Amino acid sequence: MSSVLLLPGDGIGPEIMAEAAKVLDRVDQLFGLDLQIDHGLVGGAAIDAHGTPLPDDTMAKAHAADAILLGAVGGPKWDAIEAGKRPENGLLGLRSGLQLFANLRPAILYPQLAAASSLKPEIVSGLDILIVRELTGGIYFGKPRGVHVNEAGDREGFNTYRYSEPEIRRIAAVAFEAARKRSGRLCSVDKANVLEVTRLWREIVTSMAADYPDVELSHMYVDNAAMQLVRAPKQFDVIVTGNMFGDILSDEAAMLTGSIGMLPSASLDANNKGMYEPCHGSAPDIAGRGVANPLATILSAALMLRYSLRSEAALKAADAIERAVGTVLDQGLRTADIAEVPGQSVSTARMGEAVVAAL
Amino acid sequence: MSSVLLLPGDGIGPEIMAEAAKVLDRVDQLFGLDLQIDHGLVGGAAIDAHGTPLPDDTMAKAHAADAILLGAVGGPKWDAIEAGKRPENGLLGLRSGLQLFANLRPAILYPQLAAASSLKPEIVSGLDILIVRELTGGIYFGKPRGVHVNEAGDREGFNTYRYSEPEIRRIAAVAFEAARKRSGRLCSVDKANVLEVTRLWREIVTSMAADYPDVELSHMYVDNAAMQLVRAPKQFDVIVTGNMFGDILSDEAAMLTGSIGMLPSASLDANNKGMYEPCHGSAPDIAGRGVANPLATILSAALMLRYSLRSEAALKAADAIERAVGTVLDQGLRTADIAEVPGQSVSTARMGEAVVAAL
Ligand SMILES: CC(C)[C@H](C(=O)O)[C@@H](O)C(=O)O
Ligand SMILES: CC(C)[C@H](C(=O)O)[C@@H](O)C(=O)O
Repeated sequence: MSSVLLLPGDGIGPEIMAEAAKVLDRVDQLFGLDLQIDHGLVGGAAIDAHGTPLPDDTMAKAHAADAILLGAVGGPKWDAIEAGKRPENGLLGLRSGLQLFANLRPAILYPQLAAASSLKPEIVSGLDILIVRELTGGIYFGKPRGVHVNEAGDREGFNTYRYSEPEIRRIAAVAFEAARKRSGRLCSVDKANVLEVTRLWREIVTSMAADYPDVELSHMYVDNAAMQLVRAPKQFDVIVTGNMFGDILSDEAAMLTGSIGMLPSASLDANNKGMYEPCHGSAPDIAGRGVANPLATILSAALMLRYSLRSEAALKAADAIERAVGTVLDQGLRTADIAEVPGQSVSTARMGEAVVAAL
Repeated sequence: MSSVLLLPGDGIGPEIMAEAAKVLDRVDQLFGLDLQIDHGLVGGAAIDAHGTPLPDDTMAKAHAADAILLGAVGGPKWDAIEAGKRPENGLLGLRSGLQLFANLRPAILYPQLAAASSLKPEIVSGLDILIVRELTGGIYFGKPRGVHVNEAGDREGFNTYRYSEPEIRRIAAVAFEAARKRSGRLCSVDKANVLEVTRLWREIVTSMAADYPDVELSHMYVDNAAMQLVRAPKQFDVIVTGNMFGDILSDEAAMLTGSIGMLPSASLDANNKGMYEPCHGSAPDIAGRGVANPLATILSAALMLRYSLRSEAALKAADAIERAVGTVLDQGLRTADIAEVPGQSVSTARMGEAVVAAL
């Protein structure tokens, strides 16, 4: 028996989660996974129901579950809420509370969707980058933080970008291991020419390279990385970086494919317990209209089976889901975000059902 | 009489500066600008000569000059130098010492170079974005900063991201004014859903909008901005953001054009005194080979004439330089970075001389 917690969240979250749940039900039957599926509230939905973005009940269920599948959180409805109590704090609280320090964000171009990219085909064809983002430290969690009145009598906001040696070591180890399993190339991204914290990052990552003689390590400044991703993204295989730079670069890299609605992500702790989410956000502008792309969430469920549940049956189910997604793409099914011809698109539910049928 | 300080810096800096100096000499003669040109050392070149990236002599000359033209600083040669004494600190010291808080970085696609972009022509044709980056605050200068041993006994690096209300107001005012002179659209980029300092940023920028009723203000999270620049860059006109996000996004935006070797930048104080530099870096890999593109530096000289020297003759000279650059592009002259056919390119000096001839 494996226990899975579904957290739909806000915006398009509930719609896309409903389709992923159908897919999980189906592979449960097909592969005898014996899944025990529970549900919880997080983000704006939890604020509306319980006045807090991460109710104790949700946190308890998250601790108890073997793995978590999350939709997305946030939206303009909750924009006026004070810092620390916003929908995003539900997500950040889960990441931190479960010590999910390793965020794996693949940016893969599906050959069927090559035309969706805003880049020239020769620049992005075959693109397959893995961004390893540190997820429980850095400026997202650093203290002190807040807004105060400074010595000059002016209001001043401040946050602290902080990394300790063990935090850097454990995320770098994940990245070195991932590079070893892929092409053997790892690029660490920092701003070591300006920020002391990333100078320490570079020093420690460099010192670890000796333990991974089969991995070719390089370093790049974040501004240059943002540029090189546009210029020649295929130069990268695995990129490792901190929480904030990883947030920015993984979204940029995802958009190179033109189909961010296709990209799953995994956030893992030291024991492969994980939370899985689509790379895209809660898209409040299209929420409730049944047009969102559920495939990133469905593919996140596949990653969950592969990385966290890990039984032989779970691995087979993961493969089956990924194959089924390939099949529906081959069939020409497209939600609006990836449709080549505007208007020729299917609904969220139709896409989910097509994946179920293809299983 | 106007005094101009030339700071070639490192890497390709001296080569590209030599061409910009020829152009300045020529417009001086043609338009009777009465320029008094001085030279100084900064960055690695200053470290090699004087053991410090920003000698007192350079700082004194910079204070005395009406405007400064800078090449680029930094390179692997000085990578092992401790934080605070690196080539980059020369540049940062100039920005901060002269209070050049407003960094204007245009990302313009030259029609003649449209093919150089890695994006599809329809996505970038006619691209003309202005990024207004705060340059003397934020995490670049925030204290405390450094590396220490924390309570757990581990080494830990830390930097502080800090903005006060007056700092935010003055850069936002520059951006509102710039938007007013352009299309009237301003997008402020922050990470207000996570970082308190950028929540204050958003609050203050929002509160200023009432003073600019002719400007349409929007807000975007930095991860989304990095994505939208790839997806549909022409949605932007003026972008305003802090020092670190501006560093990343301006390089990304510059690379959308495919010809970062063409892009100048201006860094201004409250009285339009300024330092002007190409958007690109010191490119140590091609330094000394006479292949670098001098046009970004030459166009930076034009911006210098327009924004800082500002006499009628200086404005005419600025126009003339920009026209001359257009002429050499029309003539088909290309340095290696923008050459369509590899091998069919001209040298740095040849390009500089062609601009002089076209004046
Ligand atoms: C919603 C937000 C807090 C989050 C982040 O910044 O980490 C999101 O952008 C992401 O990348 O998962
Ligand atoms: C050289 C470096 C310190 C500088 C910066 O980060 O500001 C550069 O990248 C730039 O954008 O001008």
